[in-house]
Amino acid sequence: MLTREECLDLDQSDPLAGHRKLFHLPDGVIYLDGNSLGALPRTIPDRLESFVRDEWGTDLIRSWNINGWFDSPNRVGARLAPIVGAEPDEVIVCDNLSVNIFKMLAAAIGLRPDRRTIVIETGNFPSDHYITDSVAATFGLEVRTVDAAEVTNAVDDDVAVVHLSHVDYRTGELLDMPAITAATRAAGAISMWDLAHSAGALEVELSSSGVDFAVGCGYKYLNGGPGAPAFIYANRRHHGDLRQPLTGWTGHAAPFALDRSYEPGPGLTPLRSGTPAMLSMVAFEEALRCFDGVDFAMVRAKSRRLGELFVELVDQFLPGQFELVGPADSARRGSQVSFQHADGYPIMQALIARGVIGDFRAPDRLRFGFAPLYVRHVDVWDAVDTIASVLATREWDDPRFRERSTVT
Amino acid sequence: MLTREECLDLDQSDPLAGHRKLFHLPDGVIYLDGNSLGALPRTIPDRLESFVRDEWGTDLIRSWNINGWFDSPNRVGARLAPIVGAEPDEVIVCDNLSVNIFKMLAAAIGLRPDRRTIVIETGNFPSDHYITDSVAATFGLEVRTVDAAEVTNAVDDDVAVVHLSHVDYRTGELLDMPAITAATRAAGAISMWDLAHSAGALEVELSSSGVDFAVGCGYKYLNGGPGAPAFIYANRRHHGDLRQPLTGWTGHAAPFALDRSYEPGPGLTPLRSGTPAMLSMVAFEEALRCFDGVDFAMVRAKSRRLGELFVELVDQFLPGQFELVGPADSARRGSQVSFQHADGYPIMQALIARGVIGDFRAPDRLRFGFAPLYVRHVDVWDAVDTIASVLATREWDDPRFRERSTVT
Repeated sequence: MLTREECLDLDQSDPLAGHRKLFHLPDGVIYLDGNSLGALPRTIPDRLESFVRDEWGTDLIRSWNINGWFDSPNRVGARLAPIVGAEPDEVIVCDNLSVNIFKMLAAAIGLRPDRRTIVIETGNFPSDHYITDSVAATFGLEVRTVDAAEVTNAVDDDVAVVHLSHVDYRTGELLDMPAITAATRAAGAISMWDLAHSAGALEVELSSSGVDFAVGCGYKYLNGGPGAPAFIYANRRHHGDLRQPLTGWTGHAAPFALDRSYEPGPGLTPLRSGTPAMLSMVAFEEALRCFDGVDFAMVRAKSRRLGELFVELVDQFLPGQFELVGPADSARRGSQVSFQHADGYPIMQALIARGVIGDFRAPDRLRFGFAPLYVRHVDVWDAVDTIASVLATREWDDPRFRERSTVT
Repeated sequence: MLTREECLDLDQSDPLAGHRKLFHLPDGVIYLDGNSLGALPRTIPDRLESFVRDEWGTDLIRSWNINGWFDSPNRVGARLAPIVGAEPDEVIVCDNLSVNIFKMLAAAIGLRPDRRTIVIETGNFPSDHYITDSVAATFGLEVRTVDAAEVTNAVDDDVAVVHLSHVDYRTGELLDMPAITAATRAAGAISMWDLAHSAGALEVELSSSGVDFAVGCGYKYLNGGPGAPAFIYANRRHHGDLRQPLTGWTGHAAPFALDRSYEPGPGLTPLRSGTPAMLSMVAFEEALRCFDGVDFAMVRAKSRRLGELFVELVDQFLPGQFELVGPADSARRGSQVSFQHADGYPIMQALIARGVIGDFRAPDRLRFGFAPLYVRHVDVWDAVDTIASVLATREWDDPRFRERSTVT
């Protein structure tokens, strides 16, 4: 039997334990939903204050130059690049993830004009499916939807792009990026990875895996704040050939010449659309400082241990009551665990009322995410202890916990 | 000869004079560039502080429900609606202007599937042209580019959509929205107006003009902050028929059901793409409070007077040295005046060095904007006095003022 004291000991010897103090975490809360919205980095309020008062309020329009606003998509992208195993000029931060998926699928089709199929993996997030269907309808391609295990078999010489999620948002399944990317490339198709549930939580090696394109959001494990701008990775071998339909003025080669015809800028510039949302951008930039010097092998090791611990403790406290969904082997999971329960929705609401915040994903999944920079081993112990208490008392069987709210 | 004292008298009797104190304006600066980036509303730093610490930091993921984040695009849209003469359910705030132009041109084409031409007015901002060209290429339409005076003649039964800027960003020319909209509608085409240079500075009557679609940005006269989210207006008669290609999850009828196929939501919902940039959104929402109870007839009257005053004083101080570009009649101008000068670029840099901030637009335009909520009559006097001094001393003829920076 694993004890709470042993979990405290694990925290004592955790080489990442010191990072927790970089975040504001409210009293009485065990936060296991950093995979939906990352916690607040402590320095953000001051950075926003100086940004607003000094850069906006005082320097005003001049800030686009003197405070580097105009170049912020590239600068923040360069800061993010090492977190996803990319070169500084291979990542740009702009728009939201849905918009960026649209751009990059269109860009991929532009690179493979003779191919008429998009392959998408079943476990992608709904927006990935919606945008893929829309891109296919817009450009006259077919969509081939296949399970993760079948992806490499599904890529033939009619496939322009293969659209995958690195970690399945429901099950936590982690796909084999190097192998799938290599198979995709061997078939002449473009690989596009959605990193929403992996960037910041585990080792991602885009460049060395030979990935063509990747996208991801800033507000989950990267802690960029609600609706933080999203990012795009494009491998250097495609720079110069990137075209997408949202040809806003900031993507132009000479944005201030105010020409009437569009001339794409160099590198990733043509992936920009309009004016960047600077308040959200500057918070994201500040948030990324929490990753300065972080060793992702360490992050991954801790993340796996937290997930394993959660599963072990569920087995110990709740034998047979909670069914694990997704891979049992932590090497094949992202930084989350999911459980199936017919009353998953009210159980999660009762847990949230007790201060244990995970989330529910329709139809019946309870999902718990582990942000390795701020979740402790003892948090996992306390969370599972609370789950056991909630189930034992059946306190979730209260009508107020069954009311569906808009966001769960 | 108009005197500085007379300008001070005009400020004394200005019914909008009290609004200036709602904004932070730096000492030693005369800010005539609110048409590029609006000044900082004084309450924004505190609102951002509470948003970040309480809503993000403490309420965390629950804020999407309990603090109304998820509904913010509609709520902020409803707050903006009266400023552009719209009903509360006709305006939504999301993404940036370039992205929204793309969506709404695509939506317009979807409403007129048998028509194969987009008409765009020459004076539109470059992004409007780039996106129009891109939409036309994507959906296989032709672009017909015409001068403002020719727009109504150019609309025939092959035209799906007419894309106009309410105020020309270079010349300040204000188009006749009711007349052009009526002619467009009579020809069976969709009207789409870009309000970037009019919303917040003059009377805009979208609903009563019968406008189909409009778009605009939040960071100019609406003072929403750098890269504030943009807005979309769609007349109620089109609700239920709005479709656009950026089919992100927040536009879905049941965004939390996590269905794999897209089902558009009601009203303006299908115009949303992905997760809203909440930091930028909340600043914009707060900024709109500066317009509470503001009478736009008064705003327009002051705006016209400021522009007339600028032109009169230029004639008085600088006879024959500065050539007015665009309409001489203030009734046909937006809230800006533009002048042509072969040395416009270094002159503007010298003015900025002196604290008089306008902007330069290639190839040779000096542009001065008047945000009626915070620009005073005496500011206009002092600005023109400074221009006269800069020209008299030729201090602009210094090499440092000729160096081109990225943003001008």
